[in-house]
Amino acid sequence: MLIRGIPVSEGIGLGRAVVVKESEYVVRKVKIEDAGAELRRFLDSIEKAKEQIREIKAATHESLGEKNAMIFDAHLLILDDPEFVNMVKWKIEEGVSAEFAIDESARFFEDLLLSLEDEYMRERANDIKDVALRLIRILNGEEQIDLKNLPEGSILIAHDLTPSQTAQINKQNVRGFITEKGGKTSHTAIIARTYGIPAVVGVEDIINKVKNGDFLIVDGYEGFVYVNPEEYLIKEYEEKLVEENRRKEELKSFLYVESKTQDEKRIKLFANVAHIEEIDAALKNGAEGIGLFRTEFLFMDRSQPPSEDEQFEVYKSVLEKMEGRPVIIRTLDAGGDKNISYLNIDKEENPFLGYRAIRFCLGNKELFKIQLRALLRASIYGNLKIMFPMITSSDEVYKAKLIIQEAEKELKKQGIDYSQNIEIGIMIETPSAAVISDILAKEVDFFSIGTNDLIQYTLAIDRTNDKVSYLYNPLHPAVLRLIKMTVENAHKNGIEVGVCGEIASNPEIVSVLIGLGVDELSVNPSKILSVKKKILQMKCEEEKRRAEDLLSWQ
Amino acid sequence: MLIRGIPVSEGIGLGRAVVVKESEYVVRKVKIEDAGAELRRFLDSIEKAKEQIREIKAATHESLGEKNAMIFDAHLLILDDPEFVNMVKWKIEEGVSAEFAIDESARFFEDLLLSLEDEYMRERANDIKDVALRLIRILNGEEQIDLKNLPEGSILIAHDLTPSQTAQINKQNVRGFITEKGGKTSHTAIIARTYGIPAVVGVEDIINKVKNGDFLIVDGYEGFVYVNPEEYLIKEYEEKLVEENRRKEELKSFLYVESKTQDEKRIKLFANVAHIEEIDAALKNGAEGIGLFRTEFLFMDRSQPPSEDEQFEVYKSVLEKMEGRPVIIRTLDAGGDKNISYLNIDKEENPFLGYRAIRFCLGNKELFKIQLRALLRASIYGNLKIMFPMITSSDEVYKAKLIIQEAEKELKKQGIDYSQNIEIGIMIETPSAAVISDILAKEVDFFSIGTNDLIQYTLAIDRTNDKVSYLYNPLHPAVLRLIKMTVENAHKNGIEVGVCGEIASNPEIVSVLIGLGVDELSVNPSKILSVKKKILQMKCEEEKRRAEDLLSWQ
Repeated sequence: MLIRGIPVSEGIGLGRAVVVKESEYVVRKVKIEDAGAELRRFLDSIEKAKEQIREIKAATHESLGEKNAMIFDAHLLILDDPEFVNMVKWKIEEGVSAEFAIDESARFFEDLLLSLEDEYMRERANDIKDVALRLIRILNGEEQIDLKNLPEGSILIAHDLTPSQTAQINKQNVRGFITEKGGKTSHTAIIARTYGIPAVVGVEDIINKVKNGDFLIVDGYEGFVYVNPEEYLIKEYEEKLVEENRRKEELKSFLYVESKTQDEKRIKLFANVAHIEEIDAALKNGAEGIGLFRTEFLFMDRSQPPSEDEQFEVYKSVLEKMEGRPVIIRTLDAGGDKNISYLNIDKEENPFLGYRAIRFCLGNKELFKIQLRALLRASIYGNLKIMFPMITSSDEVYKAKLIIQEAEKELKKQGIDYSQNIEIGIMIETPSAAVISDILAKEVDFFSIGTNDLIQYTLAIDRTNDKVSYLYNPLHPAVLRLIKMTVENAHKNGIEVGVCGEIASNPEIVSVLIGLGVDELSVNPSKILSVKKKILQMKCEEEKRRAEDLLSWQ
Repeated sequence: MLIRGIPVSEGIGLGRAVVVKESEYVVRKVKIEDAGAELRRFLDSIEKAKEQIREIKAATHESLGEKNAMIFDAHLLILDDPEFVNMVKWKIEEGVSAEFAIDESARFFEDLLLSLEDEYMRERANDIKDVALRLIRILNGEEQIDLKNLPEGSILIAHDLTPSQTAQINKQNVRGFITEKGGKTSHTAIIARTYGIPAVVGVEDIINKVKNGDFLIVDGYEGFVYVNPEEYLIKEYEEKLVEENRRKEELKSFLYVESKTQDEKRIKLFANVAHIEEIDAALKNGAEGIGLFRTEFLFMDRSQPPSEDEQFEVYKSVLEKMEGRPVIIRTLDAGGDKNISYLNIDKEENPFLGYRAIRFCLGNKELFKIQLRALLRASIYGNLKIMFPMITSSDEVYKAKLIIQEAEKELKKQGIDYSQNIEIGIMIETPSAAVISDILAKEVDFFSIGTNDLIQYTLAIDRTNDKVSYLYNPLHPAVLRLIKMTVENAHKNGIEVGVCGEIASNPEIVSVLIGLGVDELSVNPSKILSVKKKILQMKCEEEKRRAEDLLSWQ
């Protein structure tokens, strides 16, 4: 059987299906005869839940560190909380099922917690929900897949994978991801690309089409999923896999080679990441730094912004893991196509031309300052650079820097330490920023060109719109000229320019970017070595001439 | 009483209210006892309708020419059509009201006509609707305001004014427009600005707050409407009006003066228009040509595109009225914020970055070719120039020109005459077009900079979005640099550059545009003389120096 989906992470995977089922969490009110037996079911489920949570906690501690594991302590506390446990008991004694009693009690406490002023307490509402879901699953007899001990050759099938699920997975044993939900930017897709695991998403009803143990082929190039395929297909794909592995092995040989062109032009190779979990992959692939840490994912899938401490812990971990290598952290890029509901950004006619990124942050100074304070506090743990997105004028840079200064003053007053030499940079992703890059270069320490948006605005197309995506052309001479202008203005003012858009990992385009004089490329961790290979083969002077031709050709 | 609205056309107006009421056209099924009396009501209404239509036809013939008056012949034919009249009669005889019988019969024929293949017949569906509405209004005893004989000093109050209404109005007697509907780009607003009549729109429920004959002050600068104001207010506004009239008289003295700076740099002054009705105002204010004729209004407020003949008649009239002066007609600029429902452009996430203007036309070649054929056929009646909107690459220019060539071939084959030297130009309104204007200048005969969109895309802001409109800055150095780049590339290639965006009529900005080397300004007819006054006062060399400063200042 061939099933099609959206290919989001390249590669071929052959292996056995491991299906992660989710309860739909629709709990119906069921009358119970034997309340005593129901009470015992409930108490048993609590014990099992504690066992599971302790295991997950240990695994998380190992892979993501102490702070990330702390959330599970909160879960354990809930299971011991007499107020919660007693409310469930009373409800069961009134004659309803344990599932129903848990669901009702959890909702009561969720609402209560969400109504409180205290931010910390409000965050606990999510924990209650998680714990209730776990208990209900146990009661439903749902098999709990042990994500941290997946057998070698697993292909993971799920409706969707959450960050806490992907964090547990022992990825070296996984040959593919297939999910029902998601697109190119879903969490599963990002993690899959980071670890170079083939992935196909948006596969309708795959959970019910595949059984545990089915033999699968995942084609992450084409978006194909073969279920129990014929022998000749397996053979064909095995051959492809051998070739792919050969290429991967070859790429590994470049791991310790310095990234420079044949005529000795050094090109820094950085990684784009969005989750702390991806840092290991970045390092494993030889990233010289983080060229773009997207902080918006810290703000997603929750009901309120992360606290200063929570953000501080993440930034600190990233900086520590990168051990003094440069780490460019981009301030919150909300809005546009990244909707974070609790930020209350109004529905806009043209969100890509709307209230987003630095515009939102300058309009929500308190929220912005919390992020900047967290960044400043973390700065002493590594080589932090702060980057502002969607800049169109020097006025915005000026205002953002003022808020950094305010945050610094506050920290100084509180006696909290922060680094004195944090570089401040900006994204060049609006035509305006590129055109006045000579003015902006005098205000900041580095540029990073965001090609996705720069192309969108320069050509006035929304590339997520199928009707006009044919016009999306990274080699359009207007785009290349704006990149060239930016690089020249940066160099005249003694600052460096990176490119952190998607095109930076397209080998065809890498050579053009180098030809235009870009100093640093920041790409998906799994692409670092193939980009390095390309760089090692090229001559910078030749690429300069070729790029020059492209500037006037159309 | 002070009522506030949106000011859309500057000026002060004092006068007496003339309220144009509209039936809501909700016809309920009413049982009738005396079918004979009802039949007589119906037949009487037909006679009255014929009388009205004949009068309007005569007035339209006078102001807009024979072709525009022809539509009313179709209306008269319907009133004489036995099939329509008999169906209404039968229904009345079955015992319903004349209003209900008319409404039902009209809907039947509308549906029938819309189901036909023949385009001409399909267009008649609208006529049936208009006629039915007129009959129902007469039956409801609604007073028909005689729009072509409004008394001197009228201030017109309406829910909204349609093109056929504004065409009838004897505008020299009107001191103001006030409507409930509409924004800056509504038909009423456009006509008001064209004729320099003060207008305030978006005034809620004004129809019910004002009676015929009430004394009103309309403040088109602030959006104020005073109903029966106190004496001191009248005095105050009368003084303002005297000053305004003095300024207008002064401007009139520039009518026959050539538009050039003190140091003899000639600047052509053209008019932006959207309706043939505005041409007279353009000429009266000394327009040397039409810099932008927006054809999308021909496509609006109807259920299907205008036929080739219909378009031909309009283009021909414009060219004839302009008597050999240059007339730049822009091909259909649909999409974006200009939604034309029957074109079936999907709802888009970011319509400003979507399937619009030349993109839509290249994707709907037949519709595009009909417009181009109509333009070619009209070309022999004057000095036509064709302009394409939203160009981002030379590829689009090439494709559009190919379709012109196809249209020419077709016409030649059919033995239809067209001009051999029509200039082809493009709007420069995307950053891309400005950045590659050196390449594009080799492909076309002229440029016209559309500043509204150029600013939007360069700064990545939707200026109709209140949350970011504060960033809309025509003097942003990036915008000015792109304009300068465009002018320089045009002149290097021996072609001229106009500016047809809104900022071209802002006197502050006119001097900057002249300083940047623009050859032609195209503005609202009512602004031509004030822009000319500004030009006559300035020294081009001085403005050049000032503009140069602005390019690097922020």
